[in-house]
Amino acid sequence: MTEIVEGLSLNLATVRQQWGFVEAVEGCLRHGIRAIAPWRDQVAAIGLDEAARIVRKEGLQVTGLCRGGFFPAPDAAGRQAAIDDSFHAVDEAAALNADCLVLVVGGLPESSRDIVGARQMVTDGIAALLPHAIAAGVPLAIEPLHPMYAADRACVNTLRQALDICDALDPEKSGALGVAMDVYHCWWDPELEAQILRAGPKRLLAHHICDWLVPTRDMLTDRGMMGDGVIDLPAIRRMVEAGGFSGPQEVEIFSAENWWKKPGDEVLATCVERFRAVC
Amino acid sequence: MTEIVEGLSLNLATVRQQWGFVEAVEGCLRHGIRAIAPWRDQVAAIGLDEAARIVRKEGLQVTGLCRGGFFPAPDAAGRQAAIDDSFHAVDEAAALNADCLVLVVGGLPESSRDIVGARQMVTDGIAALLPHAIAAGVPLAIEPLHPMYAADRACVNTLRQALDICDALDPEKSGALGVAMDVYHCWWDPELEAQILRAGPKRLLAHHICDWLVPTRDMLTDRGMMGDGVIDLPAIRRMVEAGGFSGPQEVEIFSAENWWKKPGDEVLATCVERFRAVC
Repeated sequence: MTEIVEGLSLNLATVRQQWGFVEAVEGCLRHGIRAIAPWRDQVAAIGLDEAARIVRKEGLQVTGLCRGGFFPAPDAAGRQAAIDDSFHAVDEAAALNADCLVLVVGGLPESSRDIVGARQMVTDGIAALLPHAIAAGVPLAIEPLHPMYAADRACVNTLRQALDICDALDPEKSGALGVAMDVYHCWWDPELEAQILRAGPKRLLAHHICDWLVPTRDMLTDRGMMGDGVIDLPAIRRMVEAGGFSGPQEVEIFSAENWWKKPGDEVLATCVERFRAVC
Repeated sequence: MTEIVEGLSLNLATVRQQWGFVEAVEGCLRHGIRAIAPWRDQVAAIGLDEAARIVRKEGLQVTGLCRGGFFPAPDAAGRQAAIDDSFHAVDEAAALNADCLVLVVGGLPESSRDIVGARQMVTDGIAALLPHAIAAGVPLAIEPLHPMYAADRACVNTLRQALDICDALDPEKSGALGVAMDVYHCWWDPELEAQILRAGPKRLLAHHICDWLVPTRDMLTDRGMMGDGVIDLPAIRRMVEAGGFSGPQEVEIFSAENWWKKPGDEVLATCVERFRAVC
């Protein structure tokens, strides 16, 4: 019988080129991983009901569903469409009993250079989504993305900024709105420790890990396996624990030229080995 | 006779693949550009004395010399070597009567994951350099680089961080230590306006412009010409002017697949046209 790897979750994007939802879950179980974070397209491919059934049957923890968001749009109809889509994402997260819905908030609207305006659209979008998320019992986790994605993926780029939104929309720190902290996006931040402590247990909803490679050959799909880059993972884990987060660390690696090309079982075995050795 | 383009400087890296120092200066004069910012290798290629003679003869403003820095190193000897090299850079900047010496501070030392330690090495290195810079009359301009360069080029990644170093080492705001503000590195920063105003006239030593392309195909050499990307250049210019900076905007474009492949005169004509139209 496989030994359970406590404290480790697999974001299924890590093996998205090798496996669908079912194969990925089977792989996790073979390697003792009892927590997952799927993407909506992976869930949709087998159907939400079936995915939820597998999660229940295997007793899996779902550390997050990826993703809602992409709120900025050139016109009101586009912004409403993004909110509507995120409503569905909340419902899917609820069906999967996910710990949170991860929000990748979106960048600049088409043809816009107004990042201040885009950020307001994000705050407005989350404000519109929050009551539904509260009713569904799904915490919303704003994921600040690395500043290199500010234009096209997320104009929320630091924990400080994400937490300012939380303060504005959920000043009571109810637990309904917080952050997904990903070492890849935040490791460079001079305010990292201070902002993690500021977030505290009610707002630290997820902790994603991988590594930053030097050199990084592609801005989107060249993330490293833990230990292969320059991020001080134990130091950040200690900060997150000091901040009051006690959930699993979730491995999320986009790696077009390396890990996505290896057999899924090799990827998972390496995740487990590195998780134990360097995280 | 060519009309002078007031308020525009050319960082000579913009045409480094086409021209050496002499050709680049001749090109600038043809296009009415009366301010330049050379790199040390471009100066060394014709000799410091000759470069200084050309600057004086043509009455050029030198908006900065690139660059000193790269302070972190695994051992004390390496750190001292970086400081020694930056001493020479100060002397060269003085000979060229440059408005400032730009500091690209360096990333993590070889094999290190200690970004906090690297940042301390940067502060220590600047502290060691500052008295010599003051004696030489050369202001030091810390250039925060985009966070995507935190590991390998500069672990100072925001204006806030650079200004914190200024506060620590030059609390009187003497003008000897400040920042080089580059839109490419800072455009995404939610604190951009607040930190520019915090810097004020004594610490705003340079204003570099180009544009952020979507998509960006290379992390180092895919900068855009002003107007081709998503940066709100007039908004940032207004912030910098409100902060008290009245010097030229300095065009600095690294563009391996586009502008470095075009004839230098075409690049300069485009810089002037875009500077007038969109900056």
